[in-house]
Amino acid sequence: MAKILVIHGPNLDLLGDREPEVYGSVKLEEVNRKLVAAAAAAGAEVKIIQSNHEGEIVDAIGKAKGWADALVINPAAYTHTSVAIRDAIAAVEVPTVEVHLSNIFAREEFRHQSLIAPVAAGVIAGFGAGSYLLGLQAALKIAGAPEA
Amino acid sequence: MAKILVIHGPNLDLLGDREPEVYGSVKLEEVNRKLVAAAAAAGAEVKIIQSNHEGEIVDAIGKAKGWADALVINPAAYTHTSVAIRDAIAAVEVPTVEVHLSNIFAREEFRHQSLIAPVAAGVIAGFGAGSYLLGLQAALKIAGAPEA
Amino acid sequence: MAKILVIHGPNLDLLGDREPEVYGSVKLEEVNRKLVAAAAAAGAEVKIIQSNHEGEIVDAIGKAKGWADALVINPAAYTHTSVAIRDAIAAVEVPTVEVHLSNIFAREEFRHQSLIAPVAAGVIAGFGAGSYLLGLQAALKIAGAPEA
Amino acid sequence: MAKILVIHGPNLDLLGDREPEVYGSVKLEEVNRKLVAAAAAAGAEVKIIQSNHEGEIVDAIGKAKGWADALVINPAAYTHTSVAIRDAIAAVEVPTVEVHLSNIFAREEFRHQSLIAPVAAGVIAGFGAGSYLLGLQAALKIAGAPEA
Amino acid sequence: MAKILVIHGPNLDLLGDREPEVYGSVKLEEVNRKLVAAAAAAGAEVKIIQSNHEGEIVDAIGKAKGWADALVINPAAYTHTSVAIRDAIAAVEVPTVEVHLSNIFAREEFRHQSLIAPVAAGVIAGFGAGSYLLGLQAALKIAGAPEA
Amino acid sequence: MAKILVIHGPNLDLLGDREPEVYGSVKLEEVNRKLVAAAAAAGAEVKIIQSNHEGEIVDAIGKAKGWADALVINPAAYTHTSVAIRDAIAAVEVPTVEVHLSNIFAREEFRHQSLIAPVAAGVIAGFGAGSYLLGLQAALKIAGAPEA
Amino acid sequence: MAKILVIHGPNLDLLGDREPEVYGSVKLEEVNRKLVAAAAAAGAEVKIIQSNHEGEIVDAIGKAKGWADALVINPAAYTHTSVAIRDAIAAVEVPTVEVHLSNIFAREEFRHQSLIAPVAAGVIAGFGAGSYLLGLQAALKIAGAPEA
Amino acid sequence: MAKILVIHGPNLDLLGDREPEVYGSVKLEEVNRKLVAAAAAAGAEVKIIQSNHEGEIVDAIGKAKGWADALVINPAAYTHTSVAIRDAIAAVEVPTVEVHLSNIFAREEFRHQSLIAPVAAGVIAGFGAGSYLLGLQAALKIAGAPEA
Amino acid sequence: MAKILVIHGPNLDLLGDREPEVYGSVKLEEVNRKLVAAAAAAGAEVKIIQSNHEGEIVDAIGKAKGWADALVINPAAYTHTSVAIRDAIAAVEVPTVEVHLSNIFAREEFRHQSLIAPVAAGVIAGFGAGSYLLGLQAALKIAGAPEA
Amino acid sequence: MAKILVIHGPNLDLLGDREPEVYGSVKLEEVNRKLVAAAAAAGAEVKIIQSNHEGEIVDAIGKAKGWADALVINPAAYTHTSVAIRDAIAAVEVPTVEVHLSNIFAREEFRHQSLIAPVAAGVIAGFGAGSYLLGLQAALKIAGAPEA
Amino acid sequence: MAKILVIHGPNLDLLGDREPEVYGSVKLEEVNRKLVAAAAAAGAEVKIIQSNHEGEIVDAIGKAKGWADALVINPAAYTHTSVAIRDAIAAVEVPTVEVHLSNIFAREEFRHQSLIAPVAAGVIAGFGAGSYLLGLQAALKIAGAPEA
Amino acid sequence: MAKILVIHGPNLDLLGDREPEVYGSVKLEEVNRKLVAAAAAAGAEVKIIQSNHEGEIVDAIGKAKGWADALVINPAAYTHTSVAIRDAIAAVEVPTVEVHLSNIFAREEFRHQSLIAPVAAGVIAGFGAGSYLLGLQAALKIAGAPEA
Repeated sequence: MAKILVIHGPNLDLLGDREPEVYGSVKLEEVNRKLVAAAAAAGAEVKIIQSNHEGEIVDAIGKAKGWADALVINPAAYTHTSVAIRDAIAAVEVPTVEVHLSNIFAREEFRHQSLIAPVAAGVIAGFGAGSYLLGLQAALKIAGAPEA
Repeated sequence: MAKILVIHGPNLDLLGDREPEVYGSVKLEEVNRKLVAAAAAAGAEVKIIQSNHEGEIVDAIGKAKGWADALVINPAAYTHTSVAIRDAIAAVEVPTVEVHLSNIFAREEFRHQSLIAPVAAGVIAGFGAGSYLLGLQAALKIAGAPEA
Repeated sequence: MAKILVIHGPNLDLLGDREPEVYGSVKLEEVNRKLVAAAAAAGAEVKIIQSNHEGEIVDAIGKAKGWADALVINPAAYTHTSVAIRDAIAAVEVPTVEVHLSNIFAREEFRHQSLIAPVAAGVIAGFGAGSYLLGLQAALKIAGAPEA
Repeated sequence: MAKILVIHGPNLDLLGDREPEVYGSVKLEEVNRKLVAAAAAAGAEVKIIQSNHEGEIVDAIGKAKGWADALVINPAAYTHTSVAIRDAIAAVEVPTVEVHLSNIFAREEFRHQSLIAPVAAGVIAGFGAGSYLLGLQAALKIAGAPEA
Repeated sequence: MAKILVIHGPNLDLLGDREPEVYGSVKLEEVNRKLVAAAAAAGAEVKIIQSNHEGEIVDAIGKAKGWADALVINPAAYTHTSVAIRDAIAAVEVPTVEVHLSNIFAREEFRHQSLIAPVAAGVIAGFGAGSYLLGLQAALKIAGAPEA
Repeated sequence: MAKILVIHGPNLDLLGDREPEVYGSVKLEEVNRKLVAAAAAAGAEVKIIQSNHEGEIVDAIGKAKGWADALVINPAAYTHTSVAIRDAIAAVEVPTVEVHLSNIFAREEFRHQSLIAPVAAGVIAGFGAGSYLLGLQAALKIAGAPEA
Repeated sequence: MAKILVIHGPNLDLLGDREPEVYGSVKLEEVNRKLVAAAAAAGAEVKIIQSNHEGEIVDAIGKAKGWADALVINPAAYTHTSVAIRDAIAAVEVPTVEVHLSNIFAREEFRHQSLIAPVAAGVIAGFGAGSYLLGLQAALKIAGAPEA
Repeated sequence: MAKILVIHGPNLDLLGDREPEVYGSVKLEEVNRKLVAAAAAAGAEVKIIQSNHEGEIVDAIGKAKGWADALVINPAAYTHTSVAIRDAIAAVEVPTVEVHLSNIFAREEFRHQSLIAPVAAGVIAGFGAGSYLLGLQAALKIAGAPEA
Repeated sequence: MAKILVIHGPNLDLLGDREPEVYGSVKLEEVNRKLVAAAAAAGAEVKIIQSNHEGEIVDAIGKAKGWADALVINPAAYTHTSVAIRDAIAAVEVPTVEVHLSNIFAREEFRHQSLIAPVAAGVIAGFGAGSYLLGLQAALKIAGAPEA
Repeated sequence: MAKILVIHGPNLDLLGDREPEVYGSVKLEEVNRKLVAAAAAAGAEVKIIQSNHEGEIVDAIGKAKGWADALVINPAAYTHTSVAIRDAIAAVEVPTVEVHLSNIFAREEFRHQSLIAPVAAGVIAGFGAGSYLLGLQAALKIAGAPEA
Repeated sequence: MAKILVIHGPNLDLLGDREPEVYGSVKLEEVNRKLVAAAAAAGAEVKIIQSNHEGEIVDAIGKAKGWADALVINPAAYTHTSVAIRDAIAAVEVPTVEVHLSNIFAREEFRHQSLIAPVAAGVIAGFGAGSYLLGLQAALKIAGAPEA
Repeated sequence: MAKILVIHGPNLDLLGDREPEVYGSVKLEEVNRKLVAAAAAAGAEVKIIQSNHEGEIVDAIGKAKGWADALVINPAAYTHTSVAIRDAIAAVEVPTVEVHLSNIFAREEFRHQSLIAPVAAGVIAGFGAGSYLLGLQAALKIAGAPEA
C-alpha cells in the first residue's frame, strides 16, 4: 500500500480567502478531502500537513524517510528561499513532486526560478487545486502504486 | 464528450530506445495505448500525433481549432526554439497543457526556458511517460470533462 | 506566359480567424481567389501554396527553379528565424518579393529585422491582404509579363 | 475621383543616369508618364513633384491637406535624416505610402532605418521604377478608389 | 559489411546550380555516384538521402538506428539552428561525421558555430564535394570497416 | 472593543539582557505588562506572542484574521529576509504597524531596508520598549478605538 | 516639567490645502491644537514653530539646547537635502524624533533615504497627523516626562 | 567544570544516511557518543541538541546564556541564510565555535559565505565527524577547561 | 484687477554691481520701478520681493495663494538646487513664469538644467532686466488681464 | 525706426490645424496680424517670413544683416538639427530671440536641447502664440526701440 | 578646354564680414575674381555658384554632369549633415575636391567628421581663401588640364 | 587701515559645546576675541558675524562690497551645497579666504568637495580655532595690510 506525504507550505492555510483572483476560492480542507478520497480510491495512504514553519517542513521531510514512498510539496514562499528544504529533500531521497497552484512560468520573472525543482522528480504548475491531485497521482505512480 | 489532441514532438518516436536512463524505457505506442484507455475511461475522445516536423505540429494545432477542447503537447526540442508553434497555440486559443518527460528544471541551464509555457495553461514535467497521463487529466478538467 | 509562385508561411491558413484586429478578417481563400483572378487578368499563371513547414517551403522554392519566373512569399514567423529559406531563395536565383500584411517597420523593434529581405528583390509591407496583390504585380513585372 | 500626390525626393531628377546598376536606366519622365497613365486608368488624378529641397517637400506635404486623398513619397536621402518631413506627414494626416527604388533592407546597415516608416501606412522597396506604380495602387486603394 | 547513412541537408539538391563559385559545379548525383563507388571499393554499403525538411532529417536519423554503423551528415543551413537534429544524433548513438562543402570556419562569423559538432565524432569542412568522400572514409574507419 | 495582536520576533525573549547598550535593559515581561495596561486603559484587548520561529509568526498572522483589528509587529531579524511574513500580512489584510527598538536607519546599511514596510501602514523605530507603546496607540487609532 | 520643541518644515503651513489625497485634509492649526492639548495633559510644555527656512530651523534647533528636553521634527523637503539641519541636531545633542505624515518607506525609492534619521533617536512615519502625536509621546518619554 | 552546548543544525538528524559520499556514514548518535566521551575525558559537561528549526536553534542559543561556557554549532543550511541565529549568538555573548563536516570553502561558490562566522570565535570545516571533536576541544580551551 | 507677485532670488539685490558684463548695469530698484509702472499701465497690481533666503521665497509663494493670479520668479542660484521652492509652486497651483537675466542655455552645462521649469508655465531667459518685464506681460496674459 | 525680422520655421504654416491640443488653434495669419499691430504700436517695422526650407531661413538670416536690428525665430523642427541656421545667426551678428509655442523644458528630454540657444540672445518658451509677441518686445528692446 | 564648377556652401555669401578672425576678411567676390583669373591663366573655364540651400546645391551638382570636368566644393555647415549632397556627388560621378577655409581637423570634435569626403577625390583645408585656389589647381589636374 | 569681514557659518554659534572631540572646546566668543586682538595688532579692523541662514550669509557678503578689503569665511555645512554663497562671493569680488576647523580633506568623502573653493583665494583647514587666525593673516596680506 503506497504511502504519500503531502506538504502545504506557508500561508496555504489561508487558501480560498487569500487573493482569490490569483489562487482560487477553494479552501484547503476541500483540497485535502479530495486528496484523501483520491488516495483511498487508489488504495493508498496519504498523510497531509500544512505548515508555515520552514523547520517543521524540514522535520516532516526528514521523518518521511522510511514511511513515505513519495512526497508532494507546494513550497509556496519557501520555493525561492529555502536551502534547508532543498537539502532535506536531497537527503531523504524520497521522490518528490513539486506543485504550484498558478503557472509560475507565465508570471513574473522571479517566479520562474525554483530552488526546489533541481532536487524534485518533477513539477506541476498552473492547474489551481487540481495541481495537487495531479501531483498525488504522479507521486503514486512513482511510488509504484497500482494505477487507479 | 470532451475531445483532446495529444502532440508528441521531435524524437519522441524513439521513446524507449533513446537514452533510457533519461527518458525511460516505455515505448511511445505503450504511452499512446494508455492515453487512449485513460481517455475512454473518462468518456473522452483522444487524437494522438507524433511528428519530427515543426510544420506538421503547427498544422495539427491549427486544425485543432473547432475540434479539440484542449491540447496536450510535448514540444521536446522545439520547446526552446519554435516561435511558430507558440504563435499557433496563441492563434487557435485552445487551452494547452505543456508536458515533458524529464524534469527540465533540474537539467542544463538552457532547458529551463520554455517559449511555449507563457501561452500554456500549465506545465507538467519530470514524470516520464506519466507526464502525458497527468497532462491528459489536466486537459480533461480544463475541457470540463466529468472527473474519472 | 509568366509563372508566379506564391508562398504563404506558417499560421496563414488561419487568416481571418487569427487576431483579426491585427491581421484583418479576410480569409486566405479570398486572398487566393483575388490572386488567381489578378494573374489571369494579366495573362499569367499563378501557383499558390501555404505551408507551416519550413522544409516544404524550402522544397517549394527549390522546385520553383525552372518553373517560376518570380516568387511572392510571406515568411511570417520564419521571417526572423529561417536561414534555410533564405539560403533557398539565394540558391534558386528566382527573383523574390517579400510581403507582409502589417507594416512591420512601425511595430515592435524585433519585427524590423528580416533574414529574408537581404536576398529578396524587394519588400512590400502594411497593406493587409493588398500586400499580396501588390506583390503579385511586382513579381509579374520582374517576370517580364506584359503590364495589365 | 481619388487624388494622389507623388513626391520624388533628392537626386531622383537624375534617375536613369545615376548609378544605373543600382537604380535602373528608366528616366523620371518615363516614370511620371506611367504614373499619370495608371492614375487615368483608375479614374484618379495624380500630381507629381520632384525636389532636392527638404523644404519644398515639406511645403508640398503641407499643401496636400485638403487636396490629396493619399501620398506616395520616395524620401530618398531624407529617409534617414528629415524630422521635418516626418513631422509634416504626421501633421497633415494624409495616408502615406513610402517607396524606394532599391531594396534598402539589402544594402548598407544605415539604410535599413527609416524615419518616415513609423508614420507611413506601408512601405514598398526594391522594384525600381515599379515601386512607384505599386505605391500608386496602394495609395488608390487606401484612398478608396475603385480597383482598376 | 559496414553500413553508412549519408544525409544531405537543405538546398543540397540544388548542388551544381547553386552559387557554383562557392559550392562548385559538381551535381549531387555525381557526388552520390562517387560515394557509392567508394563504399563499394571498401566493401561497404551506403544509403543516401537528401531533404530540406528538418523533420525528415530527424526521421532518417531515428530510423538509422539498427541499420547504420555510422552517419555522414551535411546539415547545411540547419547546422546553426537545429536542436532537433542534434538531439536525434544523440538519441540514436550512431557515430556521426559532420561534413561541409565550404570551410565554414573561414566564412561569416555566424557560420562558425555548429550545434551539431558537440554530438558528432568529428567535422570535415572545406574540400568541396571531396568533404563527403573524406567523411565516408572517416565513417568507415569508425564503423570498423577494413581500410580501402 | 478594539483587539490588537502584538508580535515580538526572534531574540526578543532576551530583551534586557541582550546588548543593553543597544536595546535597553527593560525585560520583555515589563514591556508586555505595559502593553496590557495601555490596552486596558484604552478599553481595548491585546494579545501578545513572542517567537523565534518564522513559521509561528506566520501562523499567528494567519490566525489574526477575524480576531485582530490591527497588528503591531517587531519582525527583528526577519525584517530583512522573510517573504513569508510579508506574504502573510498581505494575505490577511489586517492593518499592521511595524516597530523596532533601535533606530534601524541609523545603523548598518543593510538594516535600512525592510521587506515588511511596504505592506505596513506605518513604521515606528528607535524608542526602545517605547516603540511598542507608540505602535499600540497607532494601531488603536487605525482600529478606530476611542482615543485614550 | 518636560519641554518639547516641535518643528514643522517647509510647506507644512499649507497642510490641508496641499495635495489632500496624499497629506490629508487636517490643517496645521488643528494638528497644533492637538499637540498643545496632549502636552498639557502630560503636564508638559510644548513650543511649536513652522518654518520654510532651513536657517530658521537650524537656529531653532541651536536654541533648543538648554530649553528643550526633546525635539519633534518633520523635515519635509529638507529630509533629503539638508546637511545643516542634520549637523544642528548632532551638535545640540537634544534627542530628536523624526516624523512623517506618509509612510515614506512604502513610496518612491528616493523617499526611503533620510539625511536626518542617522542623527535622530527614532522615526515615526505613516500615520498622517497622528505621526506628530505619537512623536510627541515618544519625545515626552525620552524627556523623562511622567507617562500620561 | 566547563559546560559546552553542541547544536546540530537542519538535516543532521539524517547523518550517516544522507549522501554518505559527502558526509560520511557515521550516525549522529555515534558522533554524540564521542562528544560525550571526549567531554568527560576533559572533565567537562556537554549538552547536545539537534533541530531543523531556525527558531528552535535561536531558542536554544538564547537559553544557553547562564549555563554554557561555550557553544559548538554546525548551522548547516542556515549558515548562509539565518540572520536570526547570528543575532542570537551575538546576543548571548557565549563564545561560539562554528563547525562543518565538509570543507565548505572547497565546494560551490554559495557555500563559501557564512553569516555566522563574523560572530563566531572560530571556524572548523572539512574533517567529517572529526570537526565536532576538534570544535569541542577549541570550545573547551576558550571555556578555560584544563587541556585533556 | 490682476495681481502679480514678482520674486527676485539670491544675489539679485546686487544687480547692477554684480558682473555687469554678464548681468547688465541696471539696478534692482530701477527694474522694480519699471515693473510697477508696467503693471499700473496694464491696470494690474504688482507685489515685489527680493530675498537671498530660500525659506523666505517659499514663504512668499505659500502666501501668494489666494492673492496672486500669477507669479514671476527669478530663482537665480536656487534654480538648480531648491526642491522646496519647486514643491511650493506645485503646492499653491498659482501659474508661474520663470525668468532669467542671462541666457542660461548659452552658459555652462550645469546651468541648462532647471528644477523649476517643469512646474512653470513657461520660461524667459536672456534679456537682462527685460526678462522681468516680458515675464510680467506673460503673467498678466495668463492671469487674464486685458492686453496693454 | 527699429526693424525686426520674424521667422517661422517648418510646419508652422499649419498652425491652428496641427495637433491643436499641443500647439493651440490660433492660425499663423492671426499671429502675424498681432505682430504687425504690435510693431506698429511700437513705431517699428516688422518683416515676417515662414519657410519650411532650411536654406531659405539661412538666406533670410544672411540678408537680415544691414536691415534687421533684431531677429525673432521659432526654428521648430530645425531647433535640434540645423547647424546651418546656427552658423547663420552667429555669422550675421544680429541679436536673435528664440521662441517656442510650448514649454519645451517641461516636455520630453530630447526637446530640452537646442542647437540655436547658444547663439541666441535669449529664449522664450511656453506661452503659445504669446511667445511671439513677447519675443517681438524683447527684440524691440534689444534693437533700442522706444518702449511702447 | 577644362571646365570646373565651384560651389560655395551656406553662409559663404557673408565671407569677409563673418567672424573675420576665423574666416579672414577677404570678400567672396575677391575669391571669385581670383578663381576666374587662375582658371583663365590655365586656359580653363570656371563657373561659380553660392547657395545656402542644400537643395540648390544638390540641383547644381546634378546639372554639372555633362558640363563640368571637375567640381570644387566648400560644403560648409552641410559638410557634417547632408547625405543628399553626398549622394548627388556620387550620382554624377564628376571628380570632386572638397575645400574648407579653416583647418576643420584642428577645431571642435564635431567638425572633424565629413560626410562628403568619402565620395570626394580629395580634401584641402586650412588655407583661408587660398584653399579654393589650391582646390582649383587640384581639380584642373584631375580634369587633365595642362599645368599652369 | 585694512577691513576684514569674518563669517561663521551654520552651527558655529554652538562652538565649544558641539562635539568638542572634533571641534575643540574653545567658545566662539573666545575665537572672536582673538580675532579682534590680532586685527588690532595688525592695525586692521575686523567685523564678525555668525549665521545659520544661507540667506543671511549671502546678505552679509553682498553688503561687504565697498567696506571689506577681504573676507574670511567658514561656510560649515553650506560648503558642500550652497551655490548661492558661491555666487555671492563671485559677485562682490572681495578676495575670500575659506577656513575650516577640522581637516575636511581627511574626513568623510563627501566633505572633500567644496563649492566655495573655486571662487576663494585660498583654503585653510584643520587647525581648529587656529584656522581663523591663519585665515585672518592670509586675508590681511591679500588686503595689503602691513605684516604684523
